[in-house]
This record gives sequence, structure tokens and C-alpha cells, in this order.
Amino acid sequence: MTTEEPRFVRGLSRWMKGNGSASDIVISSRVRLARNLENIPFPPAMERSDAEKVLAAAEEASGRLQESLEREYHYYPLREMSELHQWVLVEKHLISPQLTKSSALSGVIISEDEAVSIMVNEEDHFRIQCLLPGLNIRGVWETADAVDDVLGETVRYGFDGSLGYLTTCPTNLGTGMRVSVMVHLPGLAMAEQLDSVISGLAKVGAVVRGLYGEGSEAQGNLFQISNRTTLGNDEDGIVEDMSAVVREVVQRERSTRETLYRRGRTSLEDKIYRAHGLLTNARMISSEEAMHLLSMLRLGIDMNILPHIAPEVFQELMIRMRPSIIQRETGEALKPEERDVRRATLMRKRIAGQ
Amino acid sequence: MTTEEPRFVRGLSRWMKGNGSASDIVISSRVRLARNLENIPFPPAMERSDAEKVLAAAEEASGRLQESLEREYHYYPLREMSELHQWVLVEKHLISPQLTKSSALSGVIISEDEAVSIMVNEEDHFRIQCLLPGLNIRGVWETADAVDDVLGETVRYGFDGSLGYLTTCPTNLGTGMRVSVMVHLPGLAMAEQLDSVISGLAKVGAVVRGLYGEGSEAQGNLFQISNRTTLGNDEDGIVEDMSAVVREVVQRERSTRETLYRRGRTSLEDKIYRAHGLLTNARMISSEEAMHLLSMLRLGIDMNILPHIAPEVFQELMIRMRPSIIQRETGEALKPEERDVRRATLMRKRIAGQ
Repeated sequence: MTTEEPRFVRGLSRWMKGNGSASDIVISSRVRLARNLENIPFPPAMERSDAEKVLAAAEEASGRLQESLEREYHYYPLREMSELHQWVLVEKHLISPQLTKSSALSGVIISEDEAVSIMVNEEDHFRIQCLLPGLNIRGVWETADAVDDVLGETVRYGFDGSLGYLTTCPTNLGTGMRVSVMVHLPGLAMAEQLDSVISGLAKVGAVVRGLYGEGSEAQGNLFQISNRTTLGNDEDGIVEDMSAVVREVVQRERSTRETLYRRGRTSLEDKIYRAHGLLTNARMISSEEAMHLLSMLRLGIDMNILPHIAPEVFQELMIRMRPSIIQRETGEALKPEERDVRRATLMRKRIAGQ
Repeated sequence: MTTEEPRFVRGLSRWMKGNGSASDIVISSRVRLARNLENIPFPPAMERSDAEKVLAAAEEASGRLQESLEREYHYYPLREMSELHQWVLVEKHLISPQLTKSSALSGVIISEDEAVSIMVNEEDHFRIQCLLPGLNIRGVWETADAVDDVLGETVRYGFDGSLGYLTTCPTNLGTGMRVSVMVHLPGLAMAEQLDSVISGLAKVGAVVRGLYGEGSEAQGNLFQISNRTTLGNDEDGIVEDMSAVVREVVQRERSTRETLYRRGRTSLEDKIYRAHGLLTNARMISSEEAMHLLSMLRLGIDMNILPHIAPEVFQELMIRMRPSIIQRETGEALKPEERDVRRATLMRKRIAGQ
């Protein structure tokens, strides 16, 4: 355990602090690249000594990233991190829950602004991730690509002329690239058109999941849209295809919001103001209810019904309300009911300034 | 139809504007005295000409009341009143729904402050009613008694040495007096102790009903407690007995509130603040929901959780939110959804001043 608190524990990630393109619907864009070292078995098959070699390579790489990209990068081996801090990283979407399961031999490199994180010894030796606000697939890809170039200079990647980057799971072969865009679809949810949109996306090779990855349920009308295939398309092709897919979803959500407003403005305003009333008054609030109410609040902001509230309050609170982060802010073990009380206080203070 | 709008249509009745004794639980106290004229058949059996005689006597009596009691009294025949205005009187508890059913031959006398109303040709020729805020059974009885004395000087009452005042329904024989106290019991409702309290009241000769009399359901945790028997007890006895019964209910409600607060303060505050949040934010609200939320709001005021809100906002709004009064305030026919919108606006303006 480190005695000093790592910087990521207190700050907000870059995607939580701002808004980008199409930010009325697209909360964030993410890319991850799966990379493995030559001549070292994939994580599921590797020895302890192999894992230590990868960790050592990661530590060295973090120094090189800092020099080459002129931005601070920190390397953290998970075994030196408290369980609570590991969960803070999960809830900030900087690492996966899976990484914490092998914490004795895993690590993470995080950039100063938390836009870039590199998981070490998760399913692959390296998983380079870049996360930025709004619809910006090109931007996250270019940032990750620059990181990948530096990393590729310090280590030798496993690569095959016909298969591309070699990965633990064959579904990641080729580019090893997965794009994930987090979209907020309260209009389609209210109009009960989500099923039709999701099945339409499947037909064009995209996958839709909940907020915390595969198998997690959609909370707060938030969905992650990802590309299914990593092989048979180059990086530029994936960027273009996914951008087009997301723009189509954005268009459908926007027109559905307009229809809802035109057909039942008062009823829509009522839902939004009620959510505002509860968020600024409740004294206890569960994660699930808070996500639902925040979704309505954000819809109200994006539809100019609540213009006085900053849009990024949404992504900030949806992360700060998570159990481990509330726990971290109080510095003591809390029962679920106590967390509900703290969560309600957080909502009131941040939204109404009470 | 009168072209001029009667004064009662716009104002608030005295009980809505203030608070009296035990006002944390007792909203208002009411007494009514059933009186009939000698030598004229009871209303169910009377001819048109009989009814006209009673109306003429009422008109004359209203002048005498004004002279003797030094307060303005107005006489209104219902046939000269619009249906909407009749319903305003019903919703202000100044007349019964039954009086409007025979509007061709019925009338009402109302005092300037609306503390006294006398229904003419309802079930009995005269029903003298006095309504004041808080627990004040002695006060309403003395006021009604003074009105009864003046009325008794202008007409000859049907009276029998052994039966007392003669009334249409034998259950009103004797004093013809019914005391009704409106109590607000959200604590007992939350603690699910209402059934036990109501059956206890039945054992001591009291009857419990909803807000708008027999058969009406309890909205907003409001109940009317009345004496069942009018015979075999004199007026002072009824005043004493009913005051004791109500004090007992007040005591139980107070101790239940204390228990709820002690055992689950945050959960109680949460319910109260959520009601406050919805009342100050909703854009559409039904009567039923509004009554429930107002009940929570008033509980919050009475328990010093919302000390900045005036308690009488409760009784004012519970009347002003009624369909006919909302209709009156807009001056045009409204659909139920439109009333829900107006009701929500009324709540926001009055509670948050928005």
C-alpha cells in the first residue's frame, strides 16, 4: 500500500470536465488498442516471471511516454494500491474490473489528464485506452496511435503479416482496436424505440452494451456503442464506419426528442422538473434512482429546459456518485444507507449549490 | 344568474387564513345545529310554497343577524347562483353537495369572514354552521349558539319538551348538534395505526370520515372526527366529550411523530423534502397527488423540518387546488389535464414564490 494518495483519486478525468461534438447526446468517445509483447506468453498462460517482465517494461515505457509526448504519465502497480483506489479507477472507467482480479501482477499507466490509460496484464499485456468527451473518434484514435508509437519503440509487439497484432482473444486480432462511444438516449427510451435502434446497430456490425461494459445493465439511459470486428478493416475504416454509425444514432435520438417535445411538451417538462426537484431535495438516494434522475436532468439541460445547469454536471456526478468514490470522499467505511445519504447531499450541493 | 361575482368566490375563509390551538394536528373545528320551523313540513315532505316561506324567513333573518351580531351577513338563493359558484361553496366547506341538488329552492347565509354559514332547505330548514381554525370546539359552539339565538328570535323553531329540537332525521334529534373536527394524521398513517385509532374512536361514540363528509375517502391524511349521538347529552357535554376525544387523538399523533423521527429521522426528512421538491417543480399535478404531497409538506412544517413555510399554506392550497376553484380563477372551462397544469403552477407560486 502506498501511504500517499495517488492523484487520480481526487481529480476528475478530462472527459468529465468538458463537452465535445454532439455533446447533447454523445458523452464520450473511447478507443482501446490490444497489444502484446513478442516472445512472452499471453497473460492467461504466462508465469509470474513473465508478468514481472511486462510490468518492468511498462514502468520503463511510462518514462518514455512522458519524454516523447510532453505530458505527465504515472505508472502504478496494482499491488501497491488499496482496493478502494483500484475501484475508484474502475468507476472512473480508467481500468476494467477484470484488471483488479489479478492485482498481484497487473498495473496501469495513467496520463496526467486521465485521457490516456494503459492497462498492463489484463487480457492482453497492454491495453492502450484513450477517452475524450463528445463524439471524437478520430481524436481518441490519433491520441492512442501516438501513445502506441512510443510504446512500440520501447518494446517489440507480437505481430503477424497476415493476422496483424496478435491478441489473446481472436476477436481482437488485426487492428486490436475497439471503439466505444457512450451515448445518452433518454428520448429513444421514452419513445420505446431502443430495441429497434439496437437491432439496427447489430446489422451494421456494432454492439450495444450498458455503462460498465459487457453484461452490465443500461443505467441512466446510457449505452456504449462499439465495433464488433477488429479484423478485415483498417484503423481509418473503423474510425469512419463507427463515426457514421454514431451520427445516425445521434440523428434518431434528436428527432425523437423533437417529436416528444412537439407532442407532449408539458408532460416532458414535468418529468424533467420533477427529476430536478427530487435531486435538489432528496435526503437519501440510491445509485439507480440517481442515474435515472440525472438522465432526466441532462435531457432538460440539452433541450434548454434547464439552461442554468452546466451539462458536464451529468458526467461528473454519474462518476462521483459511485459507491467507491463516495466512500473515498468520506474516508471511512459506509453502510449502503449512509452512502445513499452522502449521495443525496452530493446531488443537492452540486446541482442547487445548497 | 347574478352578473356580479359574490364576494365568497374570491376570498379565503377565516379557517384557511390562520391557525388555532393544537394546529400542528387540528386543522379546523366545526359545529352545526339542525333547526326546523314550526308548522312547516320538513324539507323532504314540503311543498314549493313551504320552501319559499323558509327562504323568505332566511332572507329576513340575515338582516337581523347583521344588526344583532355587528358583522356582515349575506343571503344567497342558490337559483341565482351559477353552478360553478355553488361548487366553490361546496369546496370551501360552506355548503354540502346535497344543498346544490335542490338549488331551485335552497339558499345560504354567509358571514363576511365565512366563519358562519347557514344552509337553508337542505335536510333541515336551517343548518347553522360555524368553522374556525385549530382545536376550538368551545369557540365554534359559542359562535353558533349566538347565531342560533338571533335566528330563534325571528322564527319559531319546532321543539319538543322531551325530544328537544325536531329534525328530519331522528339521529339529529335533541340538540341537533354535530361537532366535526378536521385532523391531519400523517404520522398515524405512516405508522399504519389509523385502523386502531378509528376503531378506538368508534367505541367512545365518535365517527371518522374523509374530507368531504360521509363516504368520501381520506385525502391527504385528513379526517373528520364527529360525535355520533345528538340526543341524551347537552351541548356542553358534547363540547367537553369531543374536546377530550380529539385531545387524545392529538396526543397519539404527536407521540407517533416523535417515534418516527427518533427511529428514522433521515427517512422522514427524505419523504418531506421529496414532497417539497415535487410541489415546487412539477408542471402537472393531480388533486390526489397534490393532497398527498401537501400532507407531507405540512408535516414538515409542523415538525420544524421546513420552518420557512407558513403552516396555513396547507389549508389554503388544499381548497384553492380544488377543480371548481381552479376553474373559477381562470374564468374558462378547463380539461382535467389543463387543471393539472394550473394546479402545479399554483403550488409552485404559493410554496416557492416562483
